[in-house]
Amino acid sequence: MNAVAELIEALPAGRVLTDPDVAGSYARDQTFLEPGKPLCVVVAQTRDDVVATMRWATEHRVPVVPRGAGTGLAGGATAIEGCVMLSLARMTEIRELSPADEIAVVEPGVITADLDRAAREHGMMYAPDPSSHEISTIGGNLATNAGGLRCVKYGVTRDSTLGLEVVLADGRIMDTGRRTMKGVTGYDLTGLFVGSEGTLGVITSAILRLRRAPAVPPVTIAAEFPSPRAAGDAVAAIVAAGCQPSLLELMDRNTLEAIDDWKNIGLEPGVNAMLIAQAEGSVPGDAAEMARLCEANGASFVAVSSTQEETDELIGLRRLAYTAKERLGACLVEDVCVPRSVLPDMITIIEEVAARHDAMICTVAHAGDGNLHPVFIFDRGLPEPPANVWAAADEVFRAALRLGGTLTGEHGVGLLKRRWLGLESGPVVNEVQQGIKRVFDPLGILNPGKAI
Amino acid sequence: MNAVAELIEALPAGRVLTDPDVAGSYARDQTFLEPGKPLCVVVAQTRDDVVATMRWATEHRVPVVPRGAGTGLAGGATAIEGCVMLSLARMTEIRELSPADEIAVVEPGVITADLDRAAREHGMMYAPDPSSHEISTIGGNLATNAGGLRCVKYGVTRDSTLGLEVVLADGRIMDTGRRTMKGVTGYDLTGLFVGSEGTLGVITSAILRLRRAPAVPPVTIAAEFPSPRAAGDAVAAIVAAGCQPSLLELMDRNTLEAIDDWKNIGLEPGVNAMLIAQAEGSVPGDAAEMARLCEANGASFVAVSSTQEETDELIGLRRLAYTAKERLGACLVEDVCVPRSVLPDMITIIEEVAARHDAMICTVAHAGDGNLHPVFIFDRGLPEPPANVWAAADEVFRAALRLGGTLTGEHGVGLLKRRWLGLESGPVVNEVQQGIKRVFDPLGILNPGKAI
Repeated sequence: MNAVAELIEALPAGRVLTDPDVAGSYARDQTFLEPGKPLCVVVAQTRDDVVATMRWATEHRVPVVPRGAGTGLAGGATAIEGCVMLSLARMTEIRELSPADEIAVVEPGVITADLDRAAREHGMMYAPDPSSHEISTIGGNLATNAGGLRCVKYGVTRDSTLGLEVVLADGRIMDTGRRTMKGVTGYDLTGLFVGSEGTLGVITSAILRLRRAPAVPPVTIAAEFPSPRAAGDAVAAIVAAGCQPSLLELMDRNTLEAIDDWKNIGLEPGVNAMLIAQAEGSVPGDAAEMARLCEANGASFVAVSSTQEETDELIGLRRLAYTAKERLGACLVEDVCVPRSVLPDMITIIEEVAARHDAMICTVAHAGDGNLHPVFIFDRGLPEPPANVWAAADEVFRAALRLGGTLTGEHGVGLLKRRWLGLESGPVVNEVQQGIKRVFDPLGILNPGKAI
Repeated sequence: MNAVAELIEALPAGRVLTDPDVAGSYARDQTFLEPGKPLCVVVAQTRDDVVATMRWATEHRVPVVPRGAGTGLAGGATAIEGCVMLSLARMTEIRELSPADEIAVVEPGVITADLDRAAREHGMMYAPDPSSHEISTIGGNLATNAGGLRCVKYGVTRDSTLGLEVVLADGRIMDTGRRTMKGVTGYDLTGLFVGSEGTLGVITSAILRLRRAPAVPPVTIAAEFPSPRAAGDAVAAIVAAGCQPSLLELMDRNTLEAIDDWKNIGLEPGVNAMLIAQAEGSVPGDAAEMARLCEANGASFVAVSSTQEETDELIGLRRLAYTAKERLGACLVEDVCVPRSVLPDMITIIEEVAARHDAMICTVAHAGDGNLHPVFIFDRGLPEPPANVWAAADEVFRAALRLGGTLTGEHGVGLLKRRWLGLESGPVVNEVQQGIKRVFDPLGILNPGKAI
């Protein structure tokens, strides 16, 4: 009996997909990267399915690539030649939702926005909200330590993760963390798994922290600026003034044009950046102060909305940004993060780099965190970004590091950023990371070649 | 030349203390545990001192016990026979304080409250505030992932730690983390070191997150209750109502009596618990709502103060609790944490356990986090807690775990809690933790026998 036949035998009927076309449809994430050919796909429905798959993979030394919805932007879930793609997307149960303890216990295939909606029925919310929240899964969010729009106030996925159930490379089950708000029993294995991009184990359940949903809708501000630099200066001023926005997003002219071309938002000439900010009811003075600081930093137009409809419309605009850009061509989506005080400098550098390399860059930023997504557009006919785009991206990465920043704020390293990793991490960190990887995965079968 | 002579030679003059009496004064933390006899003490003043010490220790295979101010409550800094006590208490520089980036870069010997005061000169604060904050160091706080009074709103030390400089067991220097608010480059080594109790490396510098200090003093409530259970019910109601206290502390009758004996606070008969709560200006309605919920749950008296003086007085009272108890006898200070909804149950169990084992227990709780400190008082003449105290503590630990809680919310495992660790963590977690320990410390010289 060959290996795949053994796997089929080890799992309930229908879990293993071997048709090459079907398997191929699980092989990519949202990057342009050309995947390897998977041996097969396992569509797990229970923890036991994952256990059986990992036992089999250890026995046969077959690489396993865990996968959620495939919305990743760094190649973390790209298939490796001859791997098993292990989909967790069908493990969609919210097992528990406790407003009293402010926690939820969920399976990895739960769609992020679905958990948030379920929590809101109890007056709670699940704070992390990557732009992909309507299509990405909790498991994928955990793998990349996803951020989002609200994380300027509420932190990233790791900040909302209290405990995990993990299946290790050899099929053993490990529970990390706890159901309590605090705890320091042993090393922080929960935090170690969050952001590890499927290289240390397969998450089959998570204890997540919920927060109170604000009682009244936030006040939302939209401000138009003559330049991205001016918008960046407004952001720096808002942070320096001690405002506590629950959302602070920046879009450049290219992004606005892409949205305008698609949705006709009536973009005026001379508007070269837009800032969207929110203040929650708990800090009522902040909205007026943020509007004032936008005007003081050159905003030509500032709109303030306080109904849920207007707010949803504005945020909806921002959430369209990535899809709007995809209409322009193939995208290399970057994710640098810099200390907040140098956000205006980073914006200027991105503009200079674009001009110097004749690269089309559309930038959106979770500006309150200093996290920028310069999206490099290139010809859809090309198999990968052309030389000028790589050269521009390389300069952006190096500039971010020079300013005290990092290569990736919330997308992860995946495959895409591995070649720059050494610039940020250095040899001692690299050696330690490899050592940790060997503790969990001595045979190197878990998503090999990714993340570290 | 013997080993100690080599160490003296490797370091600047005056760094190594060999007098046994002096060395003995560095051998204890605040537990009753009888320490081993140190070989000597190194009082590090620079990172290079730490590097030289660790190189020497690796060469000679001498155990090293890192130490801050020695205020630990779990034995993490208790000397091991023949070890070097490595004091970081003289590394007290605040290297950088940036309000614009909301970070500080500090050495491990900085006193926690000193950093907070320095930050407040710039309108910022350092949020973690263990009760010992006027005497404990940042390095000790990092080692135990310290919490404190404010962590109900602002999280524990790990939540305020962005990056670390660490000297590894063999003297190599490793930088973890970043200066930015977000980042996911590689595994979370920063989080791994926080709470690792000096078993993975020696922290020589930390990039810490600052927060905006509230613009107006918080409103503080003190409420007196006929029973701790009633106070616990009020806490559960406050959490369930969605109030967002910045502090929510509970003290039982024994604790109040200990304070009253010392400071004469006019404690009335029938007052069997007190709750102290704070609401920051950003949530103005919360103070009134919390006061109302205290009354609805049986509070006999509720005082509301909004001047800084009154607030300082009330919080000062709470911070006296531990010292007041030390006047009663030797203390076994415990640190269980339970899901918040079962805090009232845990309080009842502690009372029952105290009665059943004829043990004197004074309980304070960071009630908003579900984190209780039952302090077991025993005869100062005894070298360690008598059998009835251990039996009572054992029951408290097991009950906390049964309720979904943890052995330690913020003090760490140290030596004291190691014998219960297996009840919480299980064999797979234990094996993984030992594997991680070996990656960082293959010779087992870093604080051996602690934490895991």
